[in-house]
Parts: sequence; C-alpha cells; structure tokens
Amino acid sequence: MQHLLSVDDMKENYIFDLWSKAIDQKDNYSNALKNKILTNLFYEPSTRTSSSFYSAMVRQGGSVIPINNVKFSSAIKGESLEDTVMTMATMSDCIVLRHPVTGSVAKAANVSKVPIINAGDGEGEHPTQTLLDGFTIFYNNNEKIDNLRITMIGDLRNGRTVKSLVKLLSRYSGNHFNFVSPKELSFPKESLPKNAFETTKINNVISETDVLYVTRVQTERGSDHKYSLSLEQLNLLPKKSIVMHPLPRVSEIPREFDNDPRAKYFDQMRYGLWCRMVLLKDIIA
Amino acid sequence: MQHLLSVDDMKENYIFDLWSKAIDQKDNYSNALKNKILTNLFYEPSTRTSSSFYSAMVRQGGSVIPINNVKFSSAIKGESLEDTVMTMATMSDCIVLRHPVTGSVAKAANVSKVPIINAGDGEGEHPTQTLLDGFTIFYNNNEKIDNLRITMIGDLRNGRTVKSLVKLLSRYSGNHFNFVSPKELSFPKESLPKNAFETTKINNVISETDVLYVTRVQTERGSDHKYSLSLEQLNLLPKKSIVMHPLPRVSEIPREFDNDPRAKYFDQMRYGLWCRMVLLKDIIA
Amino acid sequence: MQHLLSVDDMKENYIFDLWSKAIDQKDNYSNALKNKILTNLFYEPSTRTSSSFYSAMVRQGGSVIPINNVKFSSAIKGESLEDTVMTMATMSDCIVLRHPVTGSVAKAANVSKVPIINAGDGEGEHPTQTLLDGFTIFYNNNEKIDNLRITMIGDLRNGRTVKSLVKLLSRYSGNHFNFVSPKELSFPKESLPKNAFETTKINNVISETDVLYVTRVQTERGSDHKYSLSLEQLNLLPKKSIVMHPLPRVSEIPREFDNDPRAKYFDQMRYGLWCRMVLLKDIIA
Repeated sequence: MQHLLSVDDMKENYIFDLWSKAIDQKDNYSNALKNKILTNLFYEPSTRTSSSFYSAMVRQGGSVIPINNVKFSSAIKGESLEDTVMTMATMSDCIVLRHPVTGSVAKAANVSKVPIINAGDGEGEHPTQTLLDGFTIFYNNNEKIDNLRITMIGDLRNGRTVKSLVKLLSRYSGNHFNFVSPKELSFPKESLPKNAFETTKINNVISETDVLYVTRVQTERGSDHKYSLSLEQLNLLPKKSIVMHPLPRVSEIPREFDNDPRAKYFDQMRYGLWCRMVLLKDIIA
Repeated sequence: MQHLLSVDDMKENYIFDLWSKAIDQKDNYSNALKNKILTNLFYEPSTRTSSSFYSAMVRQGGSVIPINNVKFSSAIKGESLEDTVMTMATMSDCIVLRHPVTGSVAKAANVSKVPIINAGDGEGEHPTQTLLDGFTIFYNNNEKIDNLRITMIGDLRNGRTVKSLVKLLSRYSGNHFNFVSPKELSFPKESLPKNAFETTKINNVISETDVLYVTRVQTERGSDHKYSLSLEQLNLLPKKSIVMHPLPRVSEIPREFDNDPRAKYFDQMRYGLWCRMVLLKDIIA
Repeated sequence: MQHLLSVDDMKENYIFDLWSKAIDQKDNYSNALKNKILTNLFYEPSTRTSSSFYSAMVRQGGSVIPINNVKFSSAIKGESLEDTVMTMATMSDCIVLRHPVTGSVAKAANVSKVPIINAGDGEGEHPTQTLLDGFTIFYNNNEKIDNLRITMIGDLRNGRTVKSLVKLLSRYSGNHFNFVSPKELSFPKESLPKNAFETTKINNVISETDVLYVTRVQTERGSDHKYSLSLEQLNLLPKKSIVMHPLPRVSEIPREFDNDPRAKYFDQMRYGLWCRMVLLKDIIA
C-alpha cells in the first residue's frame, strides 16, 4: 500500500512517469477501477477538489462515496478521526482526506488499512495540487520543467500552494523565481529558494516571465491587499508564456483575458483530472 | 453542442421525436452514457429534480457529481457562477443547473464548454418540467396533445410551471383553458391564451375537463389561499380525464384519490425519468 | 416485493442462508445489480450506515442516490413522508430509510412500490445492524450462535441495538446473558430474557464471557455515566472470546486494544458490508 501525503514522498522518476502517463491518457476513459470505491472524506468543503477526484475515479470506471458536508459528517464527529478512517477503510479501497488541522492526514495514514491521499490538511500540503501545477508547466513547455523564469504574485506568505510549488520547481536546475507581493505578504524568508528576486511591483518583472502564477489574497485572513492585473499588464507577458491560477479567482485576472492563449487556469483543472486519474489507477488498481 | 435553456428552443418535431423515444424506452436501461459524467449543480435545493436527473443518468450507464447543498457549494460562492461553470465543464460532460436568479442559466451557457440543461432559474423556465408535463398528457391521450379542455387550478400567477405548460399547449390547435383561482392569484393578463375562461369556482368547469392540472399555493409567498379538492369534486371529472400535479402537494388533493385511475401525479415523475433519459442521451452521447 | 422492517420478519432459515452467502462472498464484487438504483433516504444523518449501504450497492454493480442531508432534504419536508417515498419509488429500485420517528418506516412501506429497508426509525428497529451483529458472532464462532455467554455493558436501557440483538440471540438455545450497567441504565425489566444475570461490575463476569458487547453511554441523553474498560480488564477475557461495539466509541475501549485478535469492532463493519451486499442482491435482483 502506498499513501500520498507529501510531494516530498515522490521521487523525480515517479513524477515524470506519472506526467507521461497523464499525457498519454488525456480525456480517455477506462474501466481499470471497475467496482472499486473511493471515499471522499472532506472535513472542510472543497467542491473543486472533491469533484475532480470524483470525476477522475468515475472516468477510471470506479465509484465514490461522497462525504462532503461538514455539518453532516459532524454526525460522526464524536468519534476520533482515526476511528472514522478505520471505519471507511472497511468499505472502500482508498480515502481522499481533506482536514482543517495540520498533521491530521498523517494520523489517518497511521491507522488506515487502505491508501490515504492528502487533499489538504491545514497549513500542511495538498500534493495533488502541486502535481497538477507542475504538470501544467511541464505540458505547456515541451515536457521540460527547468531553466524557467517563474513569477509568483499575490499572498505568498500564507498559501500552501505557492510554497509547495516552489519546493517542487527548486528540484530542477536553472529555475529563477520572481516574488511579487506587498511586504506583509512576502514569501517566508526561511524558505526562500536560491534564485529569488523580491519586488512589490509586477511591472518590474512581467516582461521577463515564462510562467506567471497568480494567487488571490485570502480576504478571510483579514488582508485588504486585493489587486487586479490589467489587460495592459498581462499583455507585457512574452507570447510563449503561460498564466496560471489555482482558483477561485476574485478580481486578480480580468475575464477578458480568459480566451487569450496564454491563459491556462481552467486548463489547469482539466490537467488535474488527468493527473488524478493516473494517480488513482496507480494507487488502487 | 446543444444547450437546453427554454422550451421555446425546441421545435415541435424535436419534442414529438423525444416523446416517441420516451415511449419506446420506458423503464429500460442502457449503457449509452457509460463513463460519461453529469454535474448536478443546484444552487437551491430540489431533491425531486436532482434525483430524477441522477436516476436518468445512471439508467443510461453514466454517473453524476452531486453538488446539491447550498451551504456546501457556497464554499465556491466567492467565485462567479461563470468560473464555477467553466471549472465543472473541465470535469464533466454536461451540467444540469438550478439557480435562484433569473437569467443565470443563460449566463452559464455563454461560457460553458459542455451542454447546460436549465433545471429552473428563478422566475425563468424549467423546461424539462414542461416536457414531462406535456408528455404526461400526450402519453395518456393516445399520443395526441390537441383539442383538449385543460383546467388549471391554484396559484396561476406566480408559478413558472403553469405558464410554461400553457405556452407549450397553445402551440397545438383546439386546446381550451379553464383557469381557476382566487382573483389575486389569477393567470397574468398579458400572457392569457386565446381560448381561456377564468373563474373562481372549480365546480363550474370540472365536469368539462380532460386534464386537471393542480398546483399548490406557495405559502412561502405569503398567500393564505390554501385549498383542498374533495373526493366528491374530483369524482365530477369525466372517466377518461387525468389529474396532474407538479408536486409537492400540501392539501390540494386528498390521499384517498391516489389510487384512482385518473390520478397521474406520481406517474408524472416516472414519465419525467423517461424523458430525461432520452434527453441526456440525445445531448451527451 | 419484500420489505425489511424488522428482524422479527426474518425466519431462522432465511437468516442462516443470508449469513452463509455472506461468508461465500466476503469482499468479492459482482455486477448483479448493474443499472439498479438504491435511494439512501436519511432523515437523520448516519454516515456509517449510509456509507455501508452505498458501498454494498456499488460492489454489486449498482448505484445510489444519496439523500443524506437533513437540512437539504427538508426542502421536500413540506410534503408527507409518504409522498416523498412514492416519488423516490418512481425513480429507484429500493429505498433505505432512516427516520427519527418510530413507525415511519412502516408507514413508508405501506405506500411504496419498491422494497423499503429499515435503517433505523426512532426507538424502533435497525434490522441490518442486528443482522451484522449476529453475523459477527456466527462467523467468529465456527458458524454457530448458541450456548454462548454474552456480556453486554453500557447503556442497556435506551439503545435499540442491544435490545434487538438480545431478541435475536434468545431464539437460539443455551445463550446466557450478563447485563452490566449502572442501575439507571439497566436492561428493561419487561424484556429481560430468561437466562439473564444483572450486575453493576464488569469484573464479576468478564472472565466468563464469550462475547463482550460494548456500547457507549449516549451523553446526548443527559447521562454522565461515561466509563472506560482498561487493558487489564479486557485481558481478563478468555483467549477465544470476541469484543464487539456498534460504534462510534467514545472512551469505552482503549485504542491500545484495537490490534488484539479479540477486537472485532472494525471487522463488524466489514462483515456488515458483506451482509448488506447479500441482502440488497436478494431484495432487488
């Protein structure tokens, strides 16, 4: 059995192999997971992620027990996470777990008799998001992921998405990072990669960017640093660059840019489906 | 790709063809939609409609991502309806959309890369309800839908169901309407069909009725015009007439009438399943 | 058609036959219920039970319409339970019903055109729980269920689980019961089986026990009689005994005991899946 708790658990070979399979497969269906059952155990809601796993499982011929509703699942909240996981492990072949408390997924993996996939735990990781982010770059860059100029903008301090992706990209040689944010939301000093340039102004770096990774300012964290890139700014991007966003967006990117060939943020979701299909087949079949 | 936003979009030929297929098919299963995925995207709850689409999809061999819970789906409410729809379109083959705001479904259809089926948007349409209402008449009237005396009773002012069905029935020659309601809830003057008779007393028309379409008074709209047809009144209906109701009923029809051969309101749901099976196959396969 | 409302409805032969099939089948899949649809109609939440039926249905090749959310399903609460059941019966092949009001399931069965399985109604029965409890004993006792010393501990007054299991076990000869509880939570006098011994101290009986059935004290009932069995106490159990618990547990059994070969409370859930698979096939196919 093989859990997926962190991108750190995955060797480079494994990741490249998974990405190659994702490219071979694209939107194709299979029945590889016929009669197999996935439990979507979401202690906090994430329609996007849970739906993506749901769809990936079904496209491999399997089925999903959706436990998505916090209020509802609180019915078994009286019991420990471990007991709930041991219970669901008796009736399904894999558990995708999202939990608000950091470290919960590792606790679950300790007791589970079926593989656990981490779908985000608090300040911890959300490895399939990182996988699909990396894949988006790989797929749109002739299947390479090195020697790139990556510009990241938004709240770089609080989001786990950015930190995990930086860690992944730092494995490959020649990647350079531009971090664009107000000072209060800057990338954590202790995790800064070697080739990093920090600025508060996107215009300083946008024209020298291969990958623009845009994140929203999470207003639930009390910040009022909302921002919107203008069409004019986005048009400073090189023709072959790509624009990514983990979604949901608030106002960071104007809708008018959605049909630009550089806009890849909805394709990201589609690629995510491919990656999760390969991953589920690999883990469960 | 083909959206279904309004009954007006459907030509008579198309409707008759769909109904004929529904009759051929009845409760039979198929695997026509194997590995295909429908998203049930319900911004307001409707267990009846969402379950009917769910069942229809499964009976054609497909699967459904159920996003039914307002509270839960509000998690991605921060994002625009368009972004949510574009996201779900990357991971499913069709979206059934119910939304409380009139016009939302058209907005969704503008951006979606997969077909959208309108399952009700505010004061707007709910075309599959109209399709199944029309089919119920067609199927129980020797596959004809003209030259009928249709009596509609209840809140004729506020419900979209009645207005849409009247519009559909008015396409066919010889249909006569009796509208029975208190004055405050009368059928909107501007939409009155040619052959209409308005009254406040059901006894004036019930014995001259081929189709009795009963609707509940929606007490959430503040009206206190609840009413109950008695068994005696219902027995004034001709032997070959039929009684319909879009459900849920409150007290309009007594339970004792449920086993009367003229009672078709639960069959309506079954017919609805047949119609939706044909429609999903037609749109997705 | 065959409803399952009460264990009393099931003859001994039927139960043994079902259990034998469950043993033959174990975790194997089938497509016996391909294209068949189960409605999980839960008016009060029970993730464990609804998930178990979900998984059982899928492992037989079928699908499930999950109506799990009280808040959400209240949308059709305006209508009577009977109307909701008649509606869902038009679009599915079987209904699993959980309802907080005793007697509701019998009312539903009266009108339903498809089989109803009682998944718990108020103070009433939850027959598949009793079936899986009985099966756990049968399977771990060389396929016999007589001449056993059964010790039940916890709230014996309020739980339906204990009462139903005692009724089932009393059908077979030679079974002896030890009931361990504080006086306020003792087994109801009027239902006491013949061979019963009542005590407030587990240590009086634990070493003379073949089956230890542990239940939690339901604190929502205002009781403060929480208790915890210690590892030392549990080690007084004979080597060949088994420990059961309907779950969720609070603090009754220490986690350290979970890997003891006598601990069967998670296996119980797995056995429950087998029993429900056989039952669904028997009722629907």
